[in-house]
Amino acid sequence: MGLIVQKFGGTSVGSVERILNVAERVIEEKERGNDVVVVVSAMGKTTDKLVSLAKDISSNPNKREMDMLLTTGEQITISLLTMALLQKGHDAISFTGWQAGIQTESIHGNARILNIDSTRIKSELDNGRIVVVAGFQGITEDDAISTLGRGGSDTTAVAIAATLKADKCDIYTDVTGVYTTDPRYVKDARKLLAVSYDEMLELANLGAGVLHPRAVEFAKNYSVPLEVRSSMEREVGTMIEEEVRMEQNLVVRGVAFEDDITRVSVLGLPNSLTSLSTIFTTLASNHINVDIIIQSSTNENTTNLSFSIKSDDLNETIKVLGDNKSKLNYIGIESESGLAKVSIVGSGMISNPGVAAEMFEVLAGNDIQVKMVSTSEIKVSTVVEEGNMIRAVEALHQAFHLAGTPVKA
Amino acid sequence: MGLIVQKFGGTSVGSVERILNVAERVIEEKERGNDVVVVVSAMGKTTDKLVSLAKDISSNPNKREMDMLLTTGEQITISLLTMALLQKGHDAISFTGWQAGIQTESIHGNARILNIDSTRIKSELDNGRIVVVAGFQGITEDDAISTLGRGGSDTTAVAIAATLKADKCDIYTDVTGVYTTDPRYVKDARKLLAVSYDEMLELANLGAGVLHPRAVEFAKNYSVPLEVRSSMEREVGTMIEEEVRMEQNLVVRGVAFEDDITRVSVLGLPNSLTSLSTIFTTLASNHINVDIIIQSSTNENTTNLSFSIKSDDLNETIKVLGDNKSKLNYIGIESESGLAKVSIVGSGMISNPGVAAEMFEVLAGNDIQVKMVSTSEIKVSTVVEEGNMIRAVEALHQAFHLAGTPVKA
Repeated sequence: MGLIVQKFGGTSVGSVERILNVAERVIEEKERGNDVVVVVSAMGKTTDKLVSLAKDISSNPNKREMDMLLTTGEQITISLLTMALLQKGHDAISFTGWQAGIQTESIHGNARILNIDSTRIKSELDNGRIVVVAGFQGITEDDAISTLGRGGSDTTAVAIAATLKADKCDIYTDVTGVYTTDPRYVKDARKLLAVSYDEMLELANLGAGVLHPRAVEFAKNYSVPLEVRSSMEREVGTMIEEEVRMEQNLVVRGVAFEDDITRVSVLGLPNSLTSLSTIFTTLASNHINVDIIIQSSTNENTTNLSFSIKSDDLNETIKVLGDNKSKLNYIGIESESGLAKVSIVGSGMISNPGVAAEMFEVLAGNDIQVKMVSTSEIKVSTVVEEGNMIRAVEALHQAFHLAGTPVKA
Repeated sequence: MGLIVQKFGGTSVGSVERILNVAERVIEEKERGNDVVVVVSAMGKTTDKLVSLAKDISSNPNKREMDMLLTTGEQITISLLTMALLQKGHDAISFTGWQAGIQTESIHGNARILNIDSTRIKSELDNGRIVVVAGFQGITEDDAISTLGRGGSDTTAVAIAATLKADKCDIYTDVTGVYTTDPRYVKDARKLLAVSYDEMLELANLGAGVLHPRAVEFAKNYSVPLEVRSSMEREVGTMIEEEVRMEQNLVVRGVAFEDDITRVSVLGLPNSLTSLSTIFTTLASNHINVDIIIQSSTNENTTNLSFSIKSDDLNETIKVLGDNKSKLNYIGIESESGLAKVSIVGSGMISNPGVAAEMFEVLAGNDIQVKMVSTSEIKVSTVVEEGNMIRAVEALHQAFHLAGTPVKA
């Protein structure tokens, strides 16, 4: 007898048939003797349709009103899923974000959860009911409806699990778990039975946004055990939990990759204290996301700075840097497109300094030139030519024994 | 400088273009120097679509969850209209039913408003904002979302107008006002500039449900002046207000009519105290609406009872009466379809006993046989053959000087 929080995303509740399927999954958990709280997203493309309506009305829709509009999506799903559970003979009740006591900052579009007053949820669980909660939404101090931004439903589920001290938070999605690398590209990619929170954060782009980083961070901070699993298949998924609970027999847990990368180098920047902050503040205020940043001073007075961006942002980046040339006071700009980022991830590498060296050796042994390098405690990222990306991933996947090894860490 | 409550129905907000049009109408009122509260319904067919989704999930959807589902419709409209007002440079804010403080009974699907805590609305009006409120919805004592049933948005508007002591409540709809009879059938039908609340109640089926009876009753009880007017045309509509404010120069204000009527007669009912209540309780519990009821005792022990129903309900009525024959203990059933109801309405007839006689004389003069008669203080209804309906309406419309007369009472 435990307490399980289940979260089902937009694809999993995308039609009447899928909602009925989700109801079955919820009932299975309930019939195992567990208390169940279910968090759901808006059905399929509902949110996109609502956004498009708003854009037809206003070129720059008011954010409070946008939250008012978008939150109807999850409200529709909670009512339909609850009707389905009741129809199947199980007592259930739905709550919007405000009814579930999800209090957020007083901002719109991207509010953080401040507190969850779980009195109502607890009382309904005590009544033996399945509680169905709208993800992605909450209420501000002055009773306005707010939303949590991208990945908001994941965050709602994890936050409720943390507040209720749930035994587990199951994230149901359209993939069966987290893989050693993307199975669409690498045939012998294997599903991982367990990863740590930090590894999950670094592997976030494996499996196409299977779990939002903000939710993983939240789960890590409150030690909420997560499982990523399929809403359609009945196989076991990937557990995400504290490192200490896992053995360390795999140094590298997965190989992540991403194409369409461009390197931009700003040459001859003055070696001043404010150069770096000025350049990245300027880029950020123009909504350009920078990934890897590498700085190397060439002499006492000037420095060269390289960073990677999505290739789509190159024109805008060059324009922004050009517009601010007098302020930034650099000598020249150089860029190289057609690149890709390949990363190895694993908490085992913290205590294993040779991992980066081994990675470079594998790449060199395959005639793959490394253009940029960036390291964190549990990740080594390299930038290579796009044409070498999949070869690099396959070579690393094999070299670090990810294929064919037991997947449980 | 006054306070105006405006209500726009589903057709008036049925598309992005129409919402932008509504925004213009709201701004016109605001620019006249008035404070404005706007109440809106769900867009066009939204509610029907949501009901159909629910029916796909459950044959008998839970009522609380149905309210949770349906109220998303108005929430979408309030956010879009508010975005439109903001886009056009006017400060505005949207409120759901619960945010607007609309407290209802703790029942679902057809709750009555118990109280409106108008603190938030007043405070935003004081801030100079246009306040946009979701019609049809409220909140129960235990924080569940409730709905007000059919005509709910009209009721919301009138209740808010009553609470705020608004100068006027404008009901914008797809007709330009209340007519002496249906202009689609009678060419010289005239728009009435004013009718009393009671007349409006009796004329309810003129202009195809232009205003819900419950809202009219509410307006009457709280003396809220209403105006029914067009959301598309800019002409003056029909004022609905206290009788005392109007002159009495027209005895009959309008001619209402309705086809597809069937008369059912139950013959030889025992003349007991409970016969009538038993028969109509039985019909009501089977959702059969009965309109005119006529009873005539033929002897001391038995009575004959006739009532009118919509012809669509005939089969069900006969089945229900048949199933309960032993309980009801009648001798036989007789029915006549192909009938229509024609009524004259006007508060002037209270003090004018000859009006019914004049009506019968007009019908007789046109060779129209009267099958049933029912009278109230301000209405005389007759049931005639369907083929005579329009002729009856035209003759009465002319005889009571409705065509071509001044329409202001």
